[in-house]
Amino acid sequence: MKILFTSDYCEGAAPEIIDRLVKTNMDQTIGYGEDEVSARARELIKKECGREDVDVHFLVGGTQTNTTVITSVLKPYQGVLCAASGHINQHETGAIEHGGHKVLALPPTLGKITAKQIDEYIQEHYANPDQVHIVQPGMVYISFSTELGTIYTLAELRDISTVCRRHNVPLFVDGARLGYGLMSESCDVTLRDLAQLVDIFYIGGTKQGALFGEAVVITADRLKKDFRYCIKQGGGMLAKGRLLGLQFETLFTDGLYWKLARHADVQAARIKEAFARKGYDFLIDSPTNQQFPILSAEQRKVFGEKFLFEIWQPLEGGRAGVRFCTSWATKPENVDILVKFIEEN
Amino acid sequence: MKILFTSDYCEGAAPEIIDRLVKTNMDQTIGYGEDEVSARARELIKKECGREDVDVHFLVGGTQTNTTVITSVLKPYQGVLCAASGHINQHETGAIEHGGHKVLALPPTLGKITAKQIDEYIQEHYANPDQVHIVQPGMVYISFSTELGTIYTLAELRDISTVCRRHNVPLFVDGARLGYGLMSESCDVTLRDLAQLVDIFYIGGTKQGALFGEAVVITADRLKKDFRYCIKQGGGMLAKGRLLGLQFETLFTDGLYWKLARHADVQAARIKEAFARKGYDFLIDSPTNQQFPILSAEQRKVFGEKFLFEIWQPLEGGRAGVRFCTSWATKPENVDILVKFIEEN
Amino acid sequence: MKILFTSDYCEGAAPEIIDRLVKTNMDQTIGYGEDEVSARARELIKKECGREDVDVHFLVGGTQTNTTVITSVLKPYQGVLCAASGHINQHETGAIEHGGHKVLALPPTLGKITAKQIDEYIQEHYANPDQVHIVQPGMVYISFSTELGTIYTLAELRDISTVCRRHNVPLFVDGARLGYGLMSESCDVTLRDLAQLVDIFYIGGTKQGALFGEAVVITADRLKKDFRYCIKQGGGMLAKGRLLGLQFETLFTDGLYWKLARHADVQAARIKEAFARKGYDFLIDSPTNQQFPILSAEQRKVFGEKFLFEIWQPLEGGRAGVRFCTSWATKPENVDILVKFIEEN
Amino acid sequence: MKILFTSDYCEGAAPEIIDRLVKTNMDQTIGYGEDEVSARARELIKKECGREDVDVHFLVGGTQTNTTVITSVLKPYQGVLCAASGHINQHETGAIEHGGHKVLALPPTLGKITAKQIDEYIQEHYANPDQVHIVQPGMVYISFSTELGTIYTLAELRDISTVCRRHNVPLFVDGARLGYGLMSESCDVTLRDLAQLVDIFYIGGTKQGALFGEAVVITADRLKKDFRYCIKQGGGMLAKGRLLGLQFETLFTDGLYWKLARHADVQAARIKEAFARKGYDFLIDSPTNQQFPILSAEQRKVFGEKFLFEIWQPLEGGRAGVRFCTSWATKPENVDILVKFIEEN
Repeated sequence: MKILFTSDYCEGAAPEIIDRLVKTNMDQTIGYGEDEVSARARELIKKECGREDVDVHFLVGGTQTNTTVITSVLKPYQGVLCAASGHINQHETGAIEHGGHKVLALPPTLGKITAKQIDEYIQEHYANPDQVHIVQPGMVYISFSTELGTIYTLAELRDISTVCRRHNVPLFVDGARLGYGLMSESCDVTLRDLAQLVDIFYIGGTKQGALFGEAVVITADRLKKDFRYCIKQGGGMLAKGRLLGLQFETLFTDGLYWKLARHADVQAARIKEAFARKGYDFLIDSPTNQQFPILSAEQRKVFGEKFLFEIWQPLEGGRAGVRFCTSWATKPENVDILVKFIEEN
Repeated sequence: MKILFTSDYCEGAAPEIIDRLVKTNMDQTIGYGEDEVSARARELIKKECGREDVDVHFLVGGTQTNTTVITSVLKPYQGVLCAASGHINQHETGAIEHGGHKVLALPPTLGKITAKQIDEYIQEHYANPDQVHIVQPGMVYISFSTELGTIYTLAELRDISTVCRRHNVPLFVDGARLGYGLMSESCDVTLRDLAQLVDIFYIGGTKQGALFGEAVVITADRLKKDFRYCIKQGGGMLAKGRLLGLQFETLFTDGLYWKLARHADVQAARIKEAFARKGYDFLIDSPTNQQFPILSAEQRKVFGEKFLFEIWQPLEGGRAGVRFCTSWATKPENVDILVKFIEEN
Repeated sequence: MKILFTSDYCEGAAPEIIDRLVKTNMDQTIGYGEDEVSARARELIKKECGREDVDVHFLVGGTQTNTTVITSVLKPYQGVLCAASGHINQHETGAIEHGGHKVLALPPTLGKITAKQIDEYIQEHYANPDQVHIVQPGMVYISFSTELGTIYTLAELRDISTVCRRHNVPLFVDGARLGYGLMSESCDVTLRDLAQLVDIFYIGGTKQGALFGEAVVITADRLKKDFRYCIKQGGGMLAKGRLLGLQFETLFTDGLYWKLARHADVQAARIKEAFARKGYDFLIDSPTNQQFPILSAEQRKVFGEKFLFEIWQPLEGGRAGVRFCTSWATKPENVDILVKFIEEN
Repeated sequence: MKILFTSDYCEGAAPEIIDRLVKTNMDQTIGYGEDEVSARARELIKKECGREDVDVHFLVGGTQTNTTVITSVLKPYQGVLCAASGHINQHETGAIEHGGHKVLALPPTLGKITAKQIDEYIQEHYANPDQVHIVQPGMVYISFSTELGTIYTLAELRDISTVCRRHNVPLFVDGARLGYGLMSESCDVTLRDLAQLVDIFYIGGTKQGALFGEAVVITADRLKKDFRYCIKQGGGMLAKGRLLGLQFETLFTDGLYWKLARHADVQAARIKEAFARKGYDFLIDSPTNQQFPILSAEQRKVFGEKFLFEIWQPLEGGRAGVRFCTSWATKPENVDILVKFIEEN
């Protein structure tokens, strides 16, 4: 049996969640997120954000959440600015376009875009006398941590937020891996910072200890109205909404969410160090739960006999950047095996 | 604490499912439904359908499934024929229209539409010299059991299927409550019949013993291609696809799905008989898990102190048709209490 | 050669327009409606509306205009209230749904809907605890004159406007046949009334003396922003925008638009009276340029040898309501022939 | 009065078209392109294409035509491959995305893409094990001549066609400037070649002598069905369809279309040579009616006092590539003035 490092959604859920599921299984609740469990989870998240005046909604999965949020914000002739490497531009089968909107891809640096890029794009748009022939930039999407495991610094985030607010363009953070980002040793951003700087974002559950689920936090008043219509229309309103509430209530009790995220980052760092010690190159220097060492074809074969991982980016000479992904569920003993294997190969 | 008869999604999942969840929680599997658990579940469903040549896919919820299926089938200028009371026409916040398609509503009889209505609509369309100015009927949607608890007879279903095939218009069955329909004492249709007569349908999990999940069965070859692209784009592809496989594998082991459905129908029949014995009128004569007795305002108040149920349709003189809904999870002792209450009030 | 009474778009354009086209053909202008001719036409229309503070835009055709306006106004989860007989519900191949929105059809009386219907629909929506599962009514569409030739009275229009404003739901008037409505002898509404009571409407050119073209008037400030983006995206922005400006400039010089419309109504009245004198029944009592006498199969055959007209609605016993349509271009001598024919048959 | 070289849609239409308009203005015809004039125009175009077995449809404008064609071809999860500089990617306000589809932009060389790029993109897509998470390439869009005035050679076009057919991906040619391309001295492609190599294309009228209008030619049988539904839904079905027929009938009588196109190319060549003789650099070497000399800020000011032209691409040091555009309507005496001006400045 091979050990999987292919993704952060290989296992089920944190045992605390499973326990709660078992214990409450036959409880009767009303549907669609209007139950008391969901209400409590919302309160916990507001507290964690340090703001009472935000709206919190629970959806099932990431693609759905991105589509629902973006559709709810944009006007028909608007598009969303995004790193070309962004998830909505690459791996959602055109869900944003299916919803009617162009993804306006900017060239990323280490998976990130800058306030300057955003500012220039928007300024150029409005300086163009033919602007009505061109998709209007209507919001900005960034992911935290990014698809390449990198994270924005507080300074970078502040600059982006400032530019967005100056242009009155909402800023949206895809937080499918929010915990892994915020818990990174290199991270100087907190959830409370996000809740101040960002107009709408989500706290990922699927990849971070829940069976499934993403918690959308809306901080900007003008984006709050009628969001539940959008959830329902987008197919993201779970009939048994209690299940989402239960998971997030559990995750935000006693700091479980943060502990699980920290665990993944620590295990990833061990893998990173092992590869680095042996002199492997990396595609990118990632401080979170995704690590991208570069392996030769021969090395991939050798490692592939014991471990599963993803080929991320083919390089010349048969080499390729691969991804080793840890998660809340990664067993330290499996990382021991991998580290030993790296040392010996 | 009031007893809920408001819907068939008040509780969690069948204990057998919860058990499996607990036992397999830390198993590692690849994502997006390509795992072995999902593969086994697909095989079980094919067997149950009596056909090896069907495709089976798992999605998370009903609105999402309806949208994904309909979007995958229709061309941009086509619409879907549907009873005006159909779920896609009434309770999905215009998800079908958001996907670009008109719902072509036909006047229903007891929640159902007929082969004759479908045939005439299609014939009239193609007889119209201005047809290109009008939405082309591109598929037929029926629900089984319907939103009003009624079911199609085998003869009715055969006629509809025949008309659809003559016009080369795919027939889609929304089976959110498929089990409750098929297990009704009045039902002369089997799953195998469906798998022969229908081009695409789904076996509802959410309302029938799963935490969530719907199993789409595609019998028509021309509808199979690239369906997984549609699932992903529509936000219905669960990262931890194993969870869907696990639930359907459990439901279709040892006939669990059918037992759970039968249980709900039996409990609903007890409620129906109790109301009938006391002389209550009904909105509709339903043979499945939804019952629609008519209560006065005063009666609703009295019952409402002990039980929760839905106001379905306001009638004159303050009366209203209400819905009592049973499910796989309905405790017989709670029905005892309700029956006794009916007898005494 | 048969005489056509099939529609109000059988001929080219008012000779005054053709003259201007010829004289200005080689003039050079910039594109997309930013030329001076279009600017002058906009000023003339504002004057005619009695309001300087409206925005005026020119589009090519009716379906496009309806789609562009509705798409620009509605949020993704909103639909448009409309008579079931409305053009957007019947004859635009689902263009509104293709744009993502449900048409919320109300049962019409003589092609019209009432303030009361609108009010009740909106109130019921917001009274429904499950409202987020249902398409939200986001605007109201009426046609003036209607698809059946009828017109709203000033009182009716005022009531509808009042209801719409109370609910903050924009009111949109499809004026493809606006002139024919406003110039009817029975009409007590003026263009200035419309410009006060309605949030967005259009003045039809295609059916009323132009080669093509519709002039959208936006009176509500909140609907004005970025409308030109919507026109471009919807394919309604004519490269040689001058052509639209030229036509509307001509139509609104020396009251040409009103003379042309009045002409059609007068000729239609002659046809109506001739049929009435001979005791024909009518589908509907229309005071504008469309007349709907009821003819037997035999009569249709006899008339059909000399005239072309549309079968509007088949009735029992082989009878059918047919449509005789006059226009700005209808030659009085052709109506003489028809009137004589009616008298003799 | 400045002389306009800003675009190829500054003037009205070829005098022959205006004459026909005047003479036939009061002719009565049925609507929506089902008249005899349109029928004759279709026959002329088929002849010109050397194929009787193609379908020909008339639409009003370019954006509308691109959207209608692409929407009619693609499935919801498919996108269209296109040069990043392509019109649908740059200047149609996201109309393709509004219709639900991603534009898959390829890096162009001189405004063109290659068979190799297309082949590799498609191969990589289907080689990707995660392909269902990615937009499927469903058709190829190229423009002829391109937005930069360049043209594909017959060899290039053959290669692209071969690749598209091997992958069963339809090839679409945007021919808004088709005549200017085909009539270029450098061009070795004929309309008959196109009609053999391409699955669907259009012959531009708006920029090439008509008041407005584009003629879509469908050569691939599988793309023909129900195209008129798509035209109507997309708002491109002109009520007075005769106007489109009349224009294309005139353009394809006595080779008028080709003469007009040739005229523009000749005048453009004169401008090009004049700039070249004076040692101006060019953004690109264009053999058609668009020329892109590079002017300093000072030069732009000087030229701008007498001529209007477009700033195409700002360059460093205040220089910019500008566009001088000729058309069927460009007066040789105006080009004389420009050439003289170039020589003297």
